[in-house]
Amino acid sequence: MSVHSDHQRDGYLNQAIRLAVQNVADGGGPFGAVVVTPDGTVYEGVNRVTRDHDPTAHAEVVAIRRAAAAIRKFDLSGSVLYASCEPCPLCLSATLWARIGRVYFAADRHGAARAGFDDALFYEYFSGDRPELLPVEHNELAASDEPFEAWRNHTRRTAY
Amino acid sequence: MSVHSDHQRDGYLNQAIRLAVQNVADGGGPFGAVVVTPDGTVYEGVNRVTRDHDPTAHAEVVAIRRAAAAIRKFDLSGSVLYASCEPCPLCLSATLWARIGRVYFAADRHGAARAGFDDALFYEYFSGDRPELLPVEHNELAASDEPFEAWRNHTRRTAY
Repeated sequence: MSVHSDHQRDGYLNQAIRLAVQNVADGGGPFGAVVVTPDGTVYEGVNRVTRDHDPTAHAEVVAIRRAAAAIRKFDLSGSVLYASCEPCPLCLSATLWARIGRVYFAADRHGAARAGFDDALFYEYFSGDRPELLPVEHNELAASDEPFEAWRNHTRRTAY
Repeated sequence: MSVHSDHQRDGYLNQAIRLAVQNVADGGGPFGAVVVTPDGTVYEGVNRVTRDHDPTAHAEVVAIRRAAAAIRKFDLSGSVLYASCEPCPLCLSATLWARIGRVYFAADRHGAARAGFDDALFYEYFSGDRPELLPVEHNELAASDEPFEAWRNHTRRTAY
């Protein structure tokens, strides 16, 4: 994995913060992020939720999608994510699936909550404290396992 | 919120399962999902992670992004998500941010694990049992709160 000095770390975090400030001026949410791949390339992302009509277009997700598209791999192993604010569960999940090895953030979830964002609330959902936020129901059907059977029988599948 | 009969629910779940089976034949992962908006329109999604080089292109995320883009709103309140398999933390987070009110799924995380997917592992990360999967470090900087200050001072901001 890439190892950055404290000076580099602060530089990337300040870059994410500058992106966030600029994004507010551009009409977006106050969040920015950068993904640094092992070769040192920097991929930027800003929050595009309202402008793109995309509830998943958080800064971190945008940066991850951009980096993966650029290197044509869904696996960003060895990369580091720097975020202007503590990544929410969506962004942490995207980071896990992208196999990014380490995350640094500047402001935290409480700062986001003071600015009116629900990150802290959704953390409570995942810790089990607020199940009423989203009722999720298991409804087993006769065909439930067919996709996995097809997957196991597909000899040229691309695993991830 | 849309209320669907048991018959409708099973119909949408079987549609998600059929999408998942077809997606394996098309070279994708064994996951499908549909979002049903309050007017009854159905938006389909399949897993596109490997084909699109996008670690966030899970079936549920694809369906949510497609529905939001189509209605030109990041808020899918009143919609219902049907998934061939239990949504992972990425997909549940996207569902929360999209303000979708209810989720039904057919196969569960253990079926996904048997097929080789890490959904169950990532659930453990969020329950606090596997913090080593992704080290996340808070590194407060002098500029940390500037994006939120800019946000509070931006009179024409679009909140979400």
